[in-house]
Amino acid sequence: MRILLVGASGTLGSAVRRALAERGHEVIGVGRTGGDLVADVADPEAVARLYTQAGPLDAVAVTAGDAVFKPLGELTADDVAATFRGKALSQMELVRQGASQVAGTGSFTLVSGILTEEPIVAGAAASAANGAIEAFVRAAAIELPPQRINAVSPTVAEESLPAYGPFFPGMEAVPATRVATAYVRSIEGAQTGQIYRVR
Amino acid sequence: MRILLVGASGTLGSAVRRALAERGHEVIGVGRTGGDLVADVADPEAVARLYTQAGPLDAVAVTAGDAVFKPLGELTADDVAATFRGKALSQMELVRQGASQVAGTGSFTLVSGILTEEPIVAGAAASAANGAIEAFVRAAAIELPPQRINAVSPTVAEESLPAYGPFFPGMEAVPATRVATAYVRSIEGAQTGQIYRVR
Repeated sequence: MRILLVGASGTLGSAVRRALAERGHEVIGVGRTGGDLVADVADPEAVARLYTQAGPLDAVAVTAGDAVFKPLGELTADDVAATFRGKALSQMELVRQGASQVAGTGSFTLVSGILTEEPIVAGAAASAANGAIEAFVRAAAIELPPQRINAVSPTVAEESLPAYGPFFPGMEAVPATRVATAYVRSIEGAQTGQIYRVR
Repeated sequence: MRILLVGASGTLGSAVRRALAERGHEVIGVGRTGGDLVADVADPEAVARLYTQAGPLDAVAVTAGDAVFKPLGELTADDVAATFRGKALSQMELVRQGASQVAGTGSFTLVSGILTEEPIVAGAAASAANGAIEAFVRAAAIELPPQRINAVSPTVAEESLPAYGPFFPGMEAVPATRVATAYVRSIEGAQTGQIYRVR
């Protein structure tokens, strides 16, 4: 398959890219500053340009999102809005525009995260964005067929513990390769409206 | 208790207002065009003015939100952003600013809806906003204590069937009085981080 991978250079994105390439897929990596294609998908016009540049696609997968982590008392209205733009609206826009760009039997695989159900201190905005993505996936799944849509909801990756470990006390980490497996399942499988929780 | 009720004149808001008044609470009703206080809570500055005008509060309850209902293929990026503003950011802003305005043992009761788990055609944006609210409630509940926060997630109200019935084929409706009961439970009870599903 020809797969657009948004966030391809990140910790998770690199693992997903490797897993998909090993299975013979052609991966077009998208980053905000580098990659096969460059785009800030928080900008709807950039998403439109991205699809024009990408050409025919069998699947779109997202492994990245921007969220502001601050204690609730320090979070500003702009922080909340930026987190929705960076993690929720961005992914919904890739689906909204992608529905007419991706193959009729193609798929979308979005990313949410464990914070939907298991909150951490300073993660309220990220929890909200994740909850939005999971509910959107269930809803879009009844309107997109034969196209499919799922989300992968990972806990923190082992590779991210040096940076994010202190936010996740006592929560088990998983290797990014395990999370990447869920992307393969979503893309090559036949289910839709699923949240693949990797814990 | 002295309770700020946002959306007090709507179908659900009227039932909640009645239920709270019958139990001896003082209800300050907020509407966008009328009520004891007038405010468009989608505007953070209006929320600030609202709290200044409202004075001391023991609880904040929200019974209203604006969402755009359109088939996924017709939904625009602006529709999605407007739905987040009207149903998710608005309620999160009432909590964000309210944490320093409401009594130390006070509570917030937000509104989500059945679309978080059970989607309907044309409801993808509303589902996303509801999912955001529910995840936010779980997250804020670990940072707000001793203040509390819950959400009420109703199915469609019997009273709303003339307007919204066609969107909910075969889904059971409940009287608004039953939904109002869940608000009483949230406000007078002691739980936090709960989603009270009224189905």
